[in-house]
Amino acid sequence: MPEPKSIILDWGTSSLRAALVSETGETLDTRDTTSGGIQFVKDGAFEAALMETVGAWFDAHGAIPVLASGMITSRNGWIEVPYVDAPAGLAELAAGTRQITLANGAIVTFLPGMRDPAAQPFPDVMRGEETQIVGFGLDKNRTLVLPGTHSKWARVENGRIAGFQTYATGEIFALLTKHSFIAKASEPAPGSEPRWEAFDRGAGFAASDARAADAFLSAVFSARTGVLAGVLAPDDIGDYVSGLVIGSEFRQARAAGWLKPGEAIGIVGNNVLNSRYSRVAPLFDLDIEPGPTDAAKGGVQLIAGQLQLTNEG
Amino acid sequence: MPEPKSIILDWGTSSLRAALVSETGETLDTRDTTSGGIQFVKDGAFEAALMETVGAWFDAHGAIPVLASGMITSRNGWIEVPYVDAPAGLAELAAGTRQITLANGAIVTFLPGMRDPAAQPFPDVMRGEETQIVGFGLDKNRTLVLPGTHSKWARVENGRIAGFQTYATGEIFALLTKHSFIAKASEPAPGSEPRWEAFDRGAGFAASDARAADAFLSAVFSARTGVLAGVLAPDDIGDYVSGLVIGSEFRQARAAGWLKPGEAIGIVGNNVLNSRYSRVAPLFDLDIEPGPTDAAKGGVQLIAGQLQLTNEG
Repeated sequence: MPEPKSIILDWGTSSLRAALVSETGETLDTRDTTSGGIQFVKDGAFEAALMETVGAWFDAHGAIPVLASGMITSRNGWIEVPYVDAPAGLAELAAGTRQITLANGAIVTFLPGMRDPAAQPFPDVMRGEETQIVGFGLDKNRTLVLPGTHSKWARVENGRIAGFQTYATGEIFALLTKHSFIAKASEPAPGSEPRWEAFDRGAGFAASDARAADAFLSAVFSARTGVLAGVLAPDDIGDYVSGLVIGSEFRQARAAGWLKPGEAIGIVGNNVLNSRYSRVAPLFDLDIEPGPTDAAKGGVQLIAGQLQLTNEG
Repeated sequence: MPEPKSIILDWGTSSLRAALVSETGETLDTRDTTSGGIQFVKDGAFEAALMETVGAWFDAHGAIPVLASGMITSRNGWIEVPYVDAPAGLAELAAGTRQITLANGAIVTFLPGMRDPAAQPFPDVMRGEETQIVGFGLDKNRTLVLPGTHSKWARVENGRIAGFQTYATGEIFALLTKHSFIAKASEPAPGSEPRWEAFDRGAGFAASDARAADAFLSAVFSARTGVLAGVLAPDDIGDYVSGLVIGSEFRQARAAGWLKPGEAIGIVGNNVLNSRYSRVAPLFDLDIEPGPTDAAKGGVQLIAGQLQLTNEG
C-alpha cells in the first residue's frame, strides 16, 4: 500500500467525509459520518469530532496534514475563512487559507471560498466549487458549469477563475415539484430510469425559438397546462420540470453572457445531475469537454501543493 | 332600496361568495361562506349548499336569476363548462354559458373560462379572469395585466380577448418566501406597511439594463447574497423578493411581446397586489389606465345581458 500522506475533509453542515490519501492522490481509506456534521457538534468541539472520526489514522500514520473545505470554513464552522475575491487562481486561493495546529501536532489547513464582487445585483459567493474548478483545470480559458442545488457558471481565463454566477436551479426544481400547486410531482420509484421523453420536452421548449421561453415565470405554468392538454402524464411532471428548469438555466446563462453557441463547456463534478446537463448542452449547440471524475480532491491537493511551495519559497 | 334583480356567485374551491344586485349593478346584500366551498360540498349537493347560502333571498324576492363563475364550472364543480377559445368577445362568451333550472324555478347560468390555443408550449387557460377583462372593457385595443397567484397578461383587440399568458408569479413568491433556503422571509406584522425601499430595490434590478436580470434563476439567489453583502436586512427579504418577482414578470412579459415601452396598460381588479404592480409599471415606461373597481361583477352582468339579447333575438 502507498504511504498515507494527508487527510482530506469535505466537512459540511450535515456530514463529515474524510479521505486518507497518498502523495499521488490515491484514496487509501474513507470515513463518512453524520455525527460529525457541523450542526451536530456542540460547543465548538470540532477537534474532538475530528479525532473521533480520523483519530485512528493519526495513531497509525502520525500527525499527517489535514486539508479541510466546506461549511466548516464558514461563520458556523470551526474557523471562518474570508472569501477570496475573483479573479483568483492557485496563488490567491493558497494565500487565502488559514491553518491551526491540533493537540497532536498535525496542521489543519482550511481552504477559502470565493466571492465575485462584479456580480449583479450583489457580490456572488461560493464555498467548495472553486476547489472543484481548480481540480478540473485552470490551464485553458473556458466556461464551466457545476450542477447542483445552487449551480455555478464560471469562467476560467489566464489561469484564474475570472468570475462566476449562481443559478438556484436545483432549489427551484425542488420547490416546484414538492410544494407547488402547478407542478407537484410524485416521487419516482427507487432505481427507475428518468422519463427522458418528458425531460427532453421540457428542455426542448427552453431551447426553442419561442419568445415565451424567455418568460420563466410563465414557462413553469406549462407543467399544469401540459397535463390539462393531455400531453403530459402525471408521472411525467418531475422529469418535464427537470428538463424545463435545466434548459432554462442554459437559456438564461446564454442571455447573461456565460455561453455562446459553438463553444465547448466543462461540466464539473460527478453529480447525478451531470447526465442531465450533458443531455441539455447540445440543444444549445455546446460541446462538452471531458474532465476528471474527482475534481474536488484534485483541487484540494493542487491548492495544498501551492501553499507548500509558497511556504518553502 | 332598488329592486333585487339577480344573484351573482363567485364560487370557488374554498369559499362561496354571493351578491344580491339590482338591475343597475348595485350590490344590495352579500353572503360569504367557507362551508359552501366546493371542497366542502359532499356528494354533489351543490343545490343544497346554494339554498343554504341564498335561500332567504329567493324567499324574499322570488326565483331571480343566478350567475355563477369560478371553479364551480370546472371538472370538480357543479357542471363542467368547456373553455371558450381565444379570440373571444361577449358573443362567444355568452354562447359558451350553460344553464340549469333549480327546484324553485330559478335559472342558474354558469359562465365559461377561456383557453388560448396559440399559447406556447401548451394551450393556456383561465377561469374567471376573462369575466374581469370583459368588465374592464373590450371597447379599445390594449394590454391588461391581472395580478394574482397565477397572473394573466392579456391583449384586447377589436372588441375581443385576442390571447393571454399565465405567469405563476404569486406562487413562485410564496414558494421562495415560505419554503426556500435562499429567501425564506418572516411574516410581516399584521397591518404593517410594506418595506418599499426593499421592494423598489428588487423591482429596480429586474427593470435594469443588467444582463443578469434576464437570468431569473440567478436573480432569486440575490435575496441571499444581498443579506450576505449587508445590503438587505432579514426583514427586507419578503418585500425585496416581491419587487424582484413582479419586476421580473414585467421584464419577461416584455421579452414575450406583451408590452412595449411608452404604452399604457390596464391593471385589472382590486387585489392588494395592484398597488405593487402600479409601482412597477413606470419602471418599464408604462402608463396605467384606470379601470372599474369591480370589473368581475361588471363582466358577469355584461355577459348575462348579451345572453339575454341572444335569447330574445
